Amino acid sequence: MNDEKKRTMDEQMIAEIEKDLRFISGYIKRKGREILNNYTITPPQFVALQWLYELGDLTIGELSNKMYLAFSTTTDLVDRLEKNNLVKRFRDEKDRRVVRVHLLEEGVQIIDEVIKKRQLDLAKLLEKFTEDEVRILNQYLKKLHDSMKD
Amino acid sequence: MNDEKKRTMDEQMIAEIEKDLRFISGYIKRKGREILNNYTITPPQFVALQWLYELGDLTIGELSNKMYLAFSTTTDLVDRLEKNNLVKRFRDEKDRRVVRVHLLEEGVQIIDEVIKKRQLDLAKLLEKFTEDEVRILNQYLKKLHDSMKD
Repeated sequence: MNDEKKRTMDEQMIAEIEKDLRFISGYIKRKGREILNNYTITPPQFVALQWLYELGDLTIGELSNKMYLAFSTTTDLVDRLEKNNLVKRFRDEKDRRVVRVHLLEEGVQIIDEVIKKRQLDLAKLLEKFTEDEVRILNQYLKKLHDSMKD
Repeated sequence: MNDEKKRTMDEQMIAEIEKDLRFISGYIKRKGREILNNYTITPPQFVALQWLYELGDLTIGELSNKMYLAFSTTTDLVDRLEKNNLVKRFRDEKDRRVVRVHLLEEGVQIIDEVIKKRQLDLAKLLEKFTEDEVRILNQYLKKLHDSMKD
């Protein structure tokens, strides 16, 4: 195969992957909203709880960086989560000027339930995949996710 | 391997895939917004243009179904796109009661440019993948996308 032909094939594959990822993301966003309909939290609130679940206690600054939201927007969001007893603010023992956000038991419960529902939906979507295919998909998505972190 | 152990392994893989897809979707959404910063359209407007690009002329009803938005919200969105000369409404020749939305040349140009930028970003993310891995990823994402259509 000559270089020109190979390049065109690669471009074609990239175009197809981009399109599939775009539609898969749309589905995941929509499905996520659908699941949250049964809960009192909004999608951005879910994302905030998810980061606290994932990374442990965070300052508002760290959380706003992770969420790509303005500091003031994140403050409002944490206010609402705190009012609903899903998180609480606390002062760092060593440096009293630092305030961190901590995920409360009720917040953990919501996250656990929502993620469980997302997993059940995904398991259904993967029914037509063989075990080997699921393992390879897992591996490649991890690799793609890792490259997005850089 | 006994059934119990196999089931636990499967659940572990599903959990990992769900998490990777959740973060990959977050990245794609954020990157998409970043790219649109250079354009006059909003993310939902991009999604509407994308559907018209993908499926050809659509009625407002069809478009609102695809976007999972209320009819009135979709009407407002199409109004703004029409004002910016990205789409135009036209009456069906055979059934004058039916109004369809058509993507205009300027809308096609924006979609082409935005998708090209998304492809370039994806190509960079896939640099560490071998050609075979890209081909298999393409295949499995297509399969996952297809199962989401059902």
